[in-house]
Amino acid sequence: MKKHILVIPGDGIGPEVTQWGKAALEHIAATYDHDFTFDEALMGHVAIEATGNPLPDETLEKAKKSDAILFGAVGHAKYDNDPSLKVRPEQGLLKIRKELGLYANLRPILLFDELLHASSIKPAILKGTDILFFRELTGDVYFGEKTRSEDRTTASDLMIYHKYEVERIAHKAYAAARQRRGKLCSVDKANVLESSRLWRETVQEIAKQYPDVETTHMFIDNAAMQLIKDPKQFDVVLTANLFGDILTDEASQIAGSMGMLASASVGDGTGFFEPIHGSAHDITGKDLANPLASILSAALMLEISFGLKEEAKTLVDAVDRVLKEGFRTNDIADSTTNRYKVLGTQEMGKLVLK
Amino acid sequence: MKKHILVIPGDGIGPEVTQWGKAALEHIAATYDHDFTFDEALMGHVAIEATGNPLPDETLEKAKKSDAILFGAVGHAKYDNDPSLKVRPEQGLLKIRKELGLYANLRPILLFDELLHASSIKPAILKGTDILFFRELTGDVYFGEKTRSEDRTTASDLMIYHKYEVERIAHKAYAAARQRRGKLCSVDKANVLESSRLWRETVQEIAKQYPDVETTHMFIDNAAMQLIKDPKQFDVVLTANLFGDILTDEASQIAGSMGMLASASVGDGTGFFEPIHGSAHDITGKDLANPLASILSAALMLEISFGLKEEAKTLVDAVDRVLKEGFRTNDIADSTTNRYKVLGTQEMGKLVLK
Ligand SMILES: CC(C)[C@H](C(=O)O)[C@@H](O)C(=O)O
Ligand SMILES: CC(C)[C@H](C(=O)O)[C@@H](O)C(=O)O
Repeated sequence: MKKHILVIPGDGIGPEVTQWGKAALEHIAATYDHDFTFDEALMGHVAIEATGNPLPDETLEKAKKSDAILFGAVGHAKYDNDPSLKVRPEQGLLKIRKELGLYANLRPILLFDELLHASSIKPAILKGTDILFFRELTGDVYFGEKTRSEDRTTASDLMIYHKYEVERIAHKAYAAARQRRGKLCSVDKANVLESSRLWRETVQEIAKQYPDVETTHMFIDNAAMQLIKDPKQFDVVLTANLFGDILTDEASQIAGSMGMLASASVGDGTGFFEPIHGSAHDITGKDLANPLASILSAALMLEISFGLKEEAKTLVDAVDRVLKEGFRTNDIADSTTNRYKVLGTQEMGKLVLK
Repeated sequence: MKKHILVIPGDGIGPEVTQWGKAALEHIAATYDHDFTFDEALMGHVAIEATGNPLPDETLEKAKKSDAILFGAVGHAKYDNDPSLKVRPEQGLLKIRKELGLYANLRPILLFDELLHASSIKPAILKGTDILFFRELTGDVYFGEKTRSEDRTTASDLMIYHKYEVERIAHKAYAAARQRRGKLCSVDKANVLESSRLWRETVQEIAKQYPDVETTHMFIDNAAMQLIKDPKQFDVVLTANLFGDILTDEASQIAGSMGMLASASVGDGTGFFEPIHGSAHDITGKDLANPLASILSAALMLEISFGLKEEAKTLVDAVDRVLKEGFRTNDIADSTTNRYKVLGTQEMGKLVLK
């Protein structure tokens, strides 16, 4: 199979982990005799430094021409500490999501048995958890109009949804639920928000087309609680952009660490694959980052964008094997025992590829 | 001390639990020789049924005249299943918060040692956790303008903050942090939202007036994760209305159950005290609800509105003693052992008062 892949390492630990996602793809190409070509482009703080623009035109053009994109992370403490800065790294990520029409963000909460004890949640509560989040990615308060009053004392963001935006992601989520355990939970705040009432009405309508899927609705506050109280109750979770951002980060504790979770953003064109963790400046360049989420992002790319199931499984199995053999990065090591062999980013990456 | 208290039982399990909060106040009045008088009023679904209005004028007048309000819960499945209904129970609660200027919602996450094992989170992670949330309560996307297009296919809610709204609650939160462990974490989404950038700028300014308090800022997605990963890192958490709604429900798992958590809403006038749990229709009328959150709400009223510290402590100690003696309601019982004596709402209420 011939594919052209764009790699966007981004900021912070982005480059050091993405290196391993890319290496995993190269390894698969060599082993299975595929022809993967790679290009690289800038986004985020590094792009602002180089060009003044968090998403340079050149990056967007390369993105549109590629068959799939492997991304790292964006963000920088400088902007977090100074909310008044106008040009910000995150704008690059938001703009590429919008421009490529990546409206559905899939975040599988994959629990490796070996990591059952790495979580702050009790193993008995976690065991058997298998959730697939569908987070809407190009609407909501992320993209609605923003205002700041002249005197700078009032600020607003418009939380807005159009029916077609809810419909298209709902169809994708229902299709996935059919292939899984046949349950879909839609999360909103319809007791307070009009945009959530539109969300709920629309999901209720679409649900009729999938009578074989059991649909439930939950308020976001309750969902944030249920997710740790009893995560096994969930199969597919469908939710809006902001609620999905919060719930999926929270859910990363189920997998033991954010360093383990990959996500796929898809829509009508090129797919976009990334770890759910951020740029993590505090550990950047220290060989402490967990490369597994980037390797698992590569696996998602193989499966979802290229339909290469066996190749994807090869990568997931390799991660599983390394964990079974007792190797851990710092974030998933259990400091109370010394049963584990703790590795840096580089060694862990190498080991998985072996 | 002479005080007039308005009781608003509301919907679902509201009446059955509020009965015990009220009984606790009566008990304290008798024991410490205070003169507490009580009145009752309607709000929520029961008020809609009786008057067509979720917050009847009569209730609002009584509220304004009272020294403090003890509230149960509002909500009804009928409205949750039909997002198109125009008059909704929650409007009563939102309106009374706004009308009484209850801009600061205090939610202490109080962990009874006895309940360390009732949580889905590991005891070692929880032990020693003591968080006080300050949730802004009269601004944000809750109260910004709502729109629905003519053809009903577009819906929006305005997420909006004014600087003075952030300032007044920040001052309250900093004052509390000074009395506690001197740490304040402000939670926002300033990397995406303009209203969060105003929030962060304002907190950064106010922080300068409290150099003895250590201020940190965290994004909401990260906070939702950190709260279960390492809850002990938090002392005072200051956040906006929507983020506070989500985080505090999530945090209820730290206390073992929502049935244990009380909240105080304060501003410039009458204080408003309520359990953080909702109307819970599935268990209404079954003698299964946990009355402890309402009793602890009464304790918060004694302490915060009336300055009666000793009386408040008497109630908290009574709850503690009953737990120590092994009594539990269903929500905090550990089904894997039969070490506990599981009681209904009524028996648990009686026992605490004894
Ligand atoms: C970096 C930020 C803009 C982004 C988001 O909020 O969507 C991140 O948190 C994510 O979840 O991908
Ligand atoms: C009932 C609902 C409107 C309310 C809220 O979202 O504020 C509740 O969840 C709460 O936290 O008090």
